[in-house]
Formats: sequence, C-alpha cells, structure tokens
Amino acid sequence: MHNNNEVSAVAFEEIRQLGRLAFQGLGLTAHAAEHVSNVLVLADLFGLTTHGLSRIESYGERLESGGISASAEPVVETIAPAIARVDGRNAVGPLVGMTTLEAGMQLARQFGIGLVLARGSNHFGPVSPYSYIAAEQGFASIIGSNATTTIAPSGGSDARLGNSPLGFGVPNPDGNHFMLDMAMSVVARAKIRNALTRNESIPATWATDASGKPTTDPRAALDGFLQPIGGHKGYGLALVVDLLAGLLSDAAYLTHVKSWVDAPDEPQNLGHFFILIDTARLGSPDWLKARMTDFAAILHQSPAVDAASPVIVPGEIELKKMQRYLRDGVPVDATTQGLLDQYASRVA
Amino acid sequence: MHNNNEVSAVAFEEIRQLGRLAFQGLGLTAHAAEHVSNVLVLADLFGLTTHGLSRIESYGERLESGGISASAEPVVETIAPAIARVDGRNAVGPLVGMTTLEAGMQLARQFGIGLVLARGSNHFGPVSPYSYIAAEQGFASIIGSNATTTIAPSGGSDARLGNSPLGFGVPNPDGNHFMLDMAMSVVARAKIRNALTRNESIPATWATDASGKPTTDPRAALDGFLQPIGGHKGYGLALVVDLLAGLLSDAAYLTHVKSWVDAPDEPQNLGHFFILIDTARLGSPDWLKARMTDFAAILHQSPAVDAASPVIVPGEIELKKMQRYLRDGVPVDATTQGLLDQYASRVA
Repeated sequence: MHNNNEVSAVAFEEIRQLGRLAFQGLGLTAHAAEHVSNVLVLADLFGLTTHGLSRIESYGERLESGGISASAEPVVETIAPAIARVDGRNAVGPLVGMTTLEAGMQLARQFGIGLVLARGSNHFGPVSPYSYIAAEQGFASIIGSNATTTIAPSGGSDARLGNSPLGFGVPNPDGNHFMLDMAMSVVARAKIRNALTRNESIPATWATDASGKPTTDPRAALDGFLQPIGGHKGYGLALVVDLLAGLLSDAAYLTHVKSWVDAPDEPQNLGHFFILIDTARLGSPDWLKARMTDFAAILHQSPAVDAASPVIVPGEIELKKMQRYLRDGVPVDATTQGLLDQYASRVA
Repeated sequence: MHNNNEVSAVAFEEIRQLGRLAFQGLGLTAHAAEHVSNVLVLADLFGLTTHGLSRIESYGERLESGGISASAEPVVETIAPAIARVDGRNAVGPLVGMTTLEAGMQLARQFGIGLVLARGSNHFGPVSPYSYIAAEQGFASIIGSNATTTIAPSGGSDARLGNSPLGFGVPNPDGNHFMLDMAMSVVARAKIRNALTRNESIPATWATDASGKPTTDPRAALDGFLQPIGGHKGYGLALVVDLLAGLLSDAAYLTHVKSWVDAPDEPQNLGHFFILIDTARLGSPDWLKARMTDFAAILHQSPAVDAASPVIVPGEIELKKMQRYLRDGVPVDATTQGLLDQYASRVA
C-alpha cells in the first residue's frame, strides 16, 4: 500500500455489495462472492482492517495466478453422526470457512455439538466474523486455522509452525457476545516494523533473531521469529491448533503448509476446525442472558488500575466499532477502494 | 509439609492400592476411591507431584470437614444427543472428572464428538491424566475446569477469575500422545515463593502488586495477583475456560466460586467441560500414527538454540517420567506416605 492511503467511510450495504461484485469480477459465483464479502466486511466492521476487504489485494493476486481456485465449490462429507469434513478444493478461504461454519451449525442444531474439519483451504480471514455469525444464532464456538510457518518451536531455531489463529465465541442473547480472536504470538510483525520505523528497541519477549535467541533489535527480530505468548505454553497452544486444524483434518500441517509468498501458485492446503455448541440445549435464553450479563458485570466492576482504561470483556471493542461503523459508514482505504472498483467493473 | 520430607520410590501397583484404601478410609466407596487414586497416581507418574497423591492432605481435610461429600455419587443426564451434564453433587473432584470423562468417551464413540459439562464439583486434579486415559482409547480431548479466583482481569485490581487449567490431548496409536496441560498464569505462585526465599527479584511479567501494577518484588507479588500469559490474550483464554466450565455448565463462575481456603466447609460448585473426539472416525490408526510421528519429527528436527536442550513436544516429559517411575517406583514424600497409611489403616 502507498503512504497516502486515504480512508473514507462507505455505507455498510454499499461496501458489502461492492465486495460481492469485486469477488464476482475475480471469477467467483454470486453465492461464493457473497460469503467472502460478508466475512471480510464483518472484519472491517470489527475494526480488523488488516483482515478485512484490504485482503482483496492478496486474494486477488492468488485468484488471478490460479494459486486459489475461483470456480471451486467446497464439498461437505459426513464422517460420523456429529462430525463432517469439508474438502475446500482450494477455493477461496472465507468460502470454505462459511461452508464449514454452516455445516457445523447444522450438526450442532441436531446433536447439540458438531465438529467440522476442513482441508484444501486457504487463508479464511479472522475468526471473529465466524464466531459472531454463530453467536447471533445461539451457538458457542471454538474455531481455528493453521497458517504458513513463521514461528520456531520453543528452543528451536527455524520456522516450523504457523502463528495460527484461534477464536472462541459465547452468545449473549442480548447481542453482547463474548468473542476472543487471537494469534499465538506476543505481537504481530507489524508492531516490530513500527518499532524499526521509529528507531526504537523492542521487549526481549516479542521475537528472536535468526538464530532463535531473544532480541531487542527490531531489525534482527524481522530476520528472526515471533515468540509465542507464555513461551512453551503458547508454543503448545499453536501446536494444538495445527493438530486439530491441519493434522486431524487431513490437511497440510507445520512445514507441509506451502508458503503463500514462496509458492504463490501452489495450493496451500490449509486446514480449519470448527466446533459449534447449541446453547439452546443448555438452558433458556433468559438463563443464558442473565448469566452472561452477570459475568461481564463482575469483570467490569474490578476497580481499574488506570481510571481512563476500565476493564473490558473480549468482544466489546469489536461490537462497539460495529455499531459505530453501521451508523457512520465503514472505513475503506483508497487502495482497497481502487481494487474493489477495478474488479467490480468486470461484471458491471 | 515439614522440611525433612524425604521422598521414597514406591512400586506403582502398591501406591495405587494404598491410594485406593486411603480414600476408602476417608469414606469413599471402593469404586470412587479407585477412580480418585488412579487420577492422582497418574499425576505422580507424570511428575506433577503438587497435583498427585500429595493432594490427599487438602482433599482429606475437606472430606473430614464435610466441605466435600464422601458419599455423593455424581449423576449423568443427557441433555442433547451428543451433550451430557454431570451433577457432581459435591463429590470429590477426580470422581466427578472420571464420571465426566467416561460419559464423554461414550458420546464420542456414538456420535464422533461428545461434550460433557459438570457442575457441583471440586478440584479435579491436573488435566493430563484425563487426556492420557482418553488418548489411550483413541480420543482427542479438550478439557478445562474453573478454579478459585486468584487472577485480576486485564487492567483491573482485584481477583475476579481463576488460574483455570486447560488441557488438550491428541493420541498417537504408538503411545507417544500429544498432551498439553496448562494454567493461564505465566508462572505458578510457587516460583514467586522460591524467588522470595532466595531473595531474588522477579520479572515484571510474572505478577502484579495488590493494586494491580506489575512488580519485580516477590513479596509484593505474593500480596498481589498472578499475571496471565500474553496479557489480554491469557486473560481472554482464562475467561473462555470459565465460560465453558462454569457458566455454560450451570456451575459457579468467576467470584461465585467459593474459596477452598476462606470457606472450607461450603461446596465450591466448580465446573468442568470435557470435549472428546473419536479419532477412529477421522482415519485409520496407521494414518494417525504416521501423521503424529511425522508431526513430532518435524519439530524435533529444528536445530536447538542450546544443544543441551533439544526441542520437545508437549507430553514427552510426562510420558518419559511415567516409563521411568513404572520401572523404578513412584516418588512419594514422607508426609503423603504418612497420611496415606493413616487413612488406609481405617479400613484395614
């Protein structure tokens, strides 16, 4: 992206339609393009701009080069009463993600809990859009994906596992859902790049140099590896996500995942796992609402260390931004707007 | 425990029988006592001595005072085809844990995945014994429990959530199971006590003082709160465990959990969640063994930063200790041995 990347607010319905048209312009069916646009616009509504419609840049490149299949339709296969497997057939990630989510909600509606494992997929966006869609329909969720390898194992000195995203949702029938969407690194690489730009050192807990040793030099860190949260604990959690999303799903895992950057026209064969729980089986909406509201209140009532930063519950920031952007428009940067217009014009 | 707490190696079968007799001496049925002894001896086999048979001290106190019911039998109720709820009726934790695990494996055998939520429970030991028992029968597992509040919410200044344990298991049919068993704090309180004893300062990431501010003073830290891994990430994860184990199970959650120390004769009403997945539904044992073995090999092959500390996969340390202790005997300290003998003598 260029530096003068001005941001404008675009009405929600307008940007959602434009997103749909743009992905149709990239060769997706109307149905597939709608799923992809919905997921990415939800990310933008939550303020996750790096994982929202701006991804049309990298998704578009890979769709154009054939690295992602524009025409593929994921296939759902039931492999146990409450388990399904999705073969993404190298379709665009959010389409595989939405197919997997919908299969999971259907299983959970029937059995109370459902597990869907996806293989043959690609980057599926952030987790919180899926958690949100599930929560709106009363489903608690545990969702994860594996990713290109960027993290060294604890005590190791080369990249062997991905900074795999893991997310959780628990619905509050009043709309104040709990949503946690996290990667396993202490910080994102962008924070290290920012430190380098400002010529600042970084905490030794953020990253290692290329030899695997913790470093405070942002330049050495960018040549090295992100450190997982809690040392061996975050390392273990990242492995869990890859075991569920990659190994058990029959997708690629660890170093078998092809790099989006190094092999742009080869299928990544990423995997995802979606566990959905129908909270309607556990108690009434009133019971759940009372408990979820009390849960948040207990946390909010903890006296703040800094009065200007009261305690928050995961999901609050995202849901507040969503309210604001639905009212005032969704921020879209000029580069993204240009790409959306360009691809959409192909089907106009 | 006194300072001269000598440790002896006792044959596995002998200590398991003694544990069973001791819990029978505390009023449990033979069946219940066997479950409790099995879980705690497995913890000792894994080297988790603080969560093994040494717990007979605190469990015994609460069983004697009526804080835990010695005679209660947990009740299992099916609330959806693949979801069950266990009412622990304030029985001893590992009995509730084993009842929950067995119900979960039965559901997973039938539906591929099963969820069991427990309420009315107590401290159920570490997670890894349950993960191990499940893995030995081919089940992957996600298991958690809530706990007495000892952690402040991110940005808050009093204890509102527990250092909830969360564990995962994925079976390797050759016995080299992946097992991750973690609490959400950067370190256990014992590590801070050790620093105080040695008159050393602690890293600012370990704990806060009583006002919620990070501290390097172990004394201030012991008056304050443990910090979760990755700041808001670990805070969020600890909330997830409490939401699943406490809130959705209809047990107590957050500050509703009664303190074992402050209210020793009131039921804690802890909750647990057990998610079990039958890996036999996903592929053959050969398929799983090949992938799990390759997964571990990829990690082991990362060149070690320190040649003396090669990369390990979670579970390896525990399984190696188990092999050794099964051969050479299980370490049991004199205090624990004395209590076991004392309680066991009641039924001799």
